[in-house]
Amino acid sequence: MLRNESKIRVRYAETDQMGFVYYGNYAQYFEIGRVAALKEVGLSYRSMEENGFLLPVKSLKVNYIKAALYDDELTIVTEVRELPSNRIRFDYLILRDKELLVEGETTLFFMTKEAKPCRPPQFFIDQLKPLFS
Amino acid sequence: MLRNESKIRVRYAETDQMGFVYYGNYAQYFEIGRVAALKEVGLSYRSMEENGFLLPVKSLKVNYIKAALYDDELTIVTEVRELPSNRIRFDYLILRDKELLVEGETTLFFMTKEAKPCRPPQFFIDQLKPLFS
Amino acid sequence: MLRNESKIRVRYAETDQMGFVYYGNYAQYFEIGRVAALKEVGLSYRSMEENGFLLPVKSLKVNYIKAALYDDELTIVTEVRELPSNRIRFDYLILRDKELLVEGETTLFFMTKEAKPCRPPQFFIDQLKPLFS
Amino acid sequence: MLRNESKIRVRYAETDQMGFVYYGNYAQYFEIGRVAALKEVGLSYRSMEENGFLLPVKSLKVNYIKAALYDDELTIVTEVRELPSNRIRFDYLILRDKELLVEGETTLFFMTKEAKPCRPPQFFIDQLKPLFS
Repeated sequence: MLRNESKIRVRYAETDQMGFVYYGNYAQYFEIGRVAALKEVGLSYRSMEENGFLLPVKSLKVNYIKAALYDDELTIVTEVRELPSNRIRFDYLILRDKELLVEGETTLFFMTKEAKPCRPPQFFIDQLKPLFS
Repeated sequence: MLRNESKIRVRYAETDQMGFVYYGNYAQYFEIGRVAALKEVGLSYRSMEENGFLLPVKSLKVNYIKAALYDDELTIVTEVRELPSNRIRFDYLILRDKELLVEGETTLFFMTKEAKPCRPPQFFIDQLKPLFS
Repeated sequence: MLRNESKIRVRYAETDQMGFVYYGNYAQYFEIGRVAALKEVGLSYRSMEENGFLLPVKSLKVNYIKAALYDDELTIVTEVRELPSNRIRFDYLILRDKELLVEGETTLFFMTKEAKPCRPPQFFIDQLKPLFS
Repeated sequence: MLRNESKIRVRYAETDQMGFVYYGNYAQYFEIGRVAALKEVGLSYRSMEENGFLLPVKSLKVNYIKAALYDDELTIVTEVRELPSNRIRFDYLILRDKELLVEGETTLFFMTKEAKPCRPPQFFIDQLKPLFS
């Protein structure tokens, strides 16, 4: 399994007039988590894209349990629990200390720069495979 | 059933370097759709909030079928298919002309300004009830 | 002179916990205004970009006079007061009814897709010139 | 003088289809910088707000020199060069390694929760005064 914990601090811009983090902004937090998770095994999303592989999001699910507030330090826990095929699924937890605020999942797929779905690059599989045995 | 169609135009700020609307930004489009849907039956989300009723989001699901592009004119179709109880569910379609780009759903719940879950205000139910018989 | 008035409605996502539109979001409103101003003389920013001309922002100034609130209908007044050379300056007013909320200006420059500053395309000047005599 | 250096990493959501950080997003980076600068002398913007003092932005200026890119690690240098009166001015530099990308300034003012301009709280001046002698 691939697992990463990343820390972020809630920005003022991310709150709304309810005084909470706007519900759409967790998608950014998930993105931070999955990029960090891939970096942990030497996979840079940036260089993947420079090499012609895009990873658009196919689906997103979020459950909002408790609101995150301005200036909170949040932990993003990201997991990939299965070896990716043409798709890759990430599961997320957003915590404030030990308190679970939000849980989510995204499925992404591989695509060429010409917008054609494709298989993941070989180096991608090579880096991840040892974690799933 | 409550149903609304709203039009928006994709802003440059909403794109990302893939050249698509960033996946998290559809949450904003859904919010525009549901506010417009409520307005259609004389319910102003703004005045509900001024009267002490908040409507935070409990869950979000999104399926991304095709990417929206900069300057696209999009139609947000919003539906409430069941009379709300303490929760209210909205279903969304995002279309470019007749082409379905994204489908989503959100469940929201009613909350007081003191952050306590509560029943919907009576005027809210009164406005919606005639649509669900 | 080139002049455009566009209407927008403040989104919930654009507010912050002060209950105002977040100060950085006016940059998006200005962008909406300048794109609409160019459209008024038949210039599509989208197709300019597809033809290889980018228009990044060189400078931004904003004065915040009064706060815009959630669900406000705002008017964005955009003006180009001088025929553009390699640079083009836009001036903006953001109004709620007749009340001035924000004033701003941006200077943009023309750039090729290879990130080289360049002269504006000839059709761009041709469309604008009649307005500045 | 008050001075702070903070690091951030550019998020995918912050890019636009030009492949650069969207010009309006630097306002968020500046906000991160000024909050960190105040924290350095024991001033929490969050607790100031909880104590009834708001700090809305009065003016913003930005010069864009070079574009920041996805996944760049940026340094935000924030300075307060004069002891604040009813207003407080922050100056910012955004750097990638030693390379200057953006410079900016904001002026903010103190306001009560009832939206009346006011003097800064005494503890605010007490914390800052020793730095400006």
